[in-house]
Amino acid sequence: MEMREKIRIGVIGPHQCRREEYRLGFQVGENIARVGAILVCGGLGGMMEAAAEGAKHAGGITVGILPTDKMSDANPYIDIALPTALGPFRNMLVVQACHAVIAVRGGYGTLTEIAFALRLRVPVVGLATWRFIRDGMEDQSVHRAADPDEAVQLALELARERLGKSDRPPAY
Amino acid sequence: MEMREKIRIGVIGPHQCRREEYRLGFQVGENIARVGAILVCGGLGGMMEAAAEGAKHAGGITVGILPTDKMSDANPYIDIALPTALGPFRNMLVVQACHAVIAVRGGYGTLTEIAFALRLRVPVVGLATWRFIRDGMEDQSVHRAADPDEAVQLALELARERLGKSDRPPAY
Amino acid sequence: MEMREKIRIGVIGPHQCRREEYRLGFQVGENIARVGAILVCGGLGGMMEAAAEGAKHAGGITVGILPTDKMSDANPYIDIALPTALGPFRNMLVVQACHAVIAVRGGYGTLTEIAFALRLRVPVVGLATWRFIRDGMEDQSVHRAADPDEAVQLALELARERLGKSDRPPAY
Amino acid sequence: MEMREKIRIGVIGPHQCRREEYRLGFQVGENIARVGAILVCGGLGGMMEAAAEGAKHAGGITVGILPTDKMSDANPYIDIALPTALGPFRNMLVVQACHAVIAVRGGYGTLTEIAFALRLRVPVVGLATWRFIRDGMEDQSVHRAADPDEAVQLALELARERLGKSDRPPAY
Repeated sequence: MEMREKIRIGVIGPHQCRREEYRLGFQVGENIARVGAILVCGGLGGMMEAAAEGAKHAGGITVGILPTDKMSDANPYIDIALPTALGPFRNMLVVQACHAVIAVRGGYGTLTEIAFALRLRVPVVGLATWRFIRDGMEDQSVHRAADPDEAVQLALELARERLGKSDRPPAY
Repeated sequence: MEMREKIRIGVIGPHQCRREEYRLGFQVGENIARVGAILVCGGLGGMMEAAAEGAKHAGGITVGILPTDKMSDANPYIDIALPTALGPFRNMLVVQACHAVIAVRGGYGTLTEIAFALRLRVPVVGLATWRFIRDGMEDQSVHRAADPDEAVQLALELARERLGKSDRPPAY
Repeated sequence: MEMREKIRIGVIGPHQCRREEYRLGFQVGENIARVGAILVCGGLGGMMEAAAEGAKHAGGITVGILPTDKMSDANPYIDIALPTALGPFRNMLVVQACHAVIAVRGGYGTLTEIAFALRLRVPVVGLATWRFIRDGMEDQSVHRAADPDEAVQLALELARERLGKSDRPPAY
Repeated sequence: MEMREKIRIGVIGPHQCRREEYRLGFQVGENIARVGAILVCGGLGGMMEAAAEGAKHAGGITVGILPTDKMSDANPYIDIALPTALGPFRNMLVVQACHAVIAVRGGYGTLTEIAFALRLRVPVVGLATWRFIRDGMEDQSVHRAADPDEAVQLALELARERLGKSDRPPAY
């Protein structure tokens, strides 16, 4: 399959993380590469690096959309680094570059990304991440997964479903 | 007091709203003007118009940061309309232009604004709006208010506290 | 006339300038206020401060769209300061907030603003600023003025003409 | 050489072009691929498509940074399409993603890209494109090339020189 036809799955999560969180991110990235999808992330450390390392370990392709203006700020597992100089506002570009995103844990930065994904109708899979309550009821828009396998499987299905629904010729 | 010394309080909320929600927004805007603060909002209809109408009714000043490229898209109660052509991404500019924001109800657009405010450490007061759960516990960063009076009072205190804490000379 | 009905004229120019350049900017700002228009600029020093000081000296209203995330970075003559944290990319927002812009001298930053204005069809008046050549012929889109009086007069006419041409009800 | 170590050269030019302009862009893209660089462009038609088609014809890799929110808006020769929904403002992101850019002819959109490149100190090679005059003298910052071969050769040298000068470890 050509690069332009591949599904793109984003991984969003904290820029610093503990060992067991890193392992979680690594496995998500590995699975993304194994199902033939391109990994998109914020390009820096923590969960972004974990997922990128996992994807490269499984022979995948990785894209990093950086908050800074230097390509060399990307972690060593990013193939295509895109500097934006937009600071925390580059989060919206990460989300927009994906057919689906997987949120793994995360703080307020990840919260902005989940919110943008919901706003832009990019499907979101959540792995041990934020939950939202409105009018006393939990919002069900984030699809919950129990482990990296399920997260990637869900993201892939949601991405395909979304592409099928597209009103444009499905070039992707 | 000169315009540049005034506190700025943002109102974020849905672009369409029912009559009782509109009344809520109107009262918030009215109170913002009464305490001498400038109202900042997204400049369009619904809760944004409600707050702007309330602020003008009480003789205040209103700023609207628009998602479109036309000043004339602003609702009729906006004094200074700023077109951005940034679509949903102008939300980050609304938040950044404020010393504190009040979220009144709202959908996913409002969710992105609350998330950006938390990320950028702009104090957020919530009036019947989103709640967030992380690791099984509710996040306490959004200050909850019971009514428009309390919301504006809280926002004013938080804005002042933030200005006092600033590492720069408090020009504002 | 109410604030929302006022014409907005931008002044774009270098963030550092010599005394005679500052005087030029001051006079432009003064004239903008005298004709009843709002001054919009980048909010920092040099030509931006010159124009803002001139406008305030003549009792006008000033808006500053800042590249940083701090309102307190605005020069002391800005009434409404809008932090953007967008760095050099806030230039596009300055241009977009105006009915016409006046470019006074300037370096590459000013060049980006003139270019954006031409791209977005915001009328540009040039005072001792960049000229452009394409296919061996000078581009005539920048309206040349000989002094601050002529510059503001031209900008005002172009702004009015543009508003008259607008396909939307001329709220402004 | 791995993807992340490759030089990135941007091609900026009009979104519509005549046959001889298309051929010029095609040859530029072809040469970029032949020297082993990645082509970055705005992802749409005209000169962007010409360069991308040329690069793919020579077996290269292409990145397209789109003004819209749909990956499927990319021309058929783009490997990695990045939607931004930023309209004409995505131009700054195109420039920032490159080690050097080549401007081929072009209108006001291309003018904004050249201006941003000069502002951000990304080297610019010009092929039959805009020239700039300041204080009665032509600005010499755009490196002029006579044909596609010379343009790519110059861009490659300027990109390498820039990388050598970088204060950071030259990961790229």
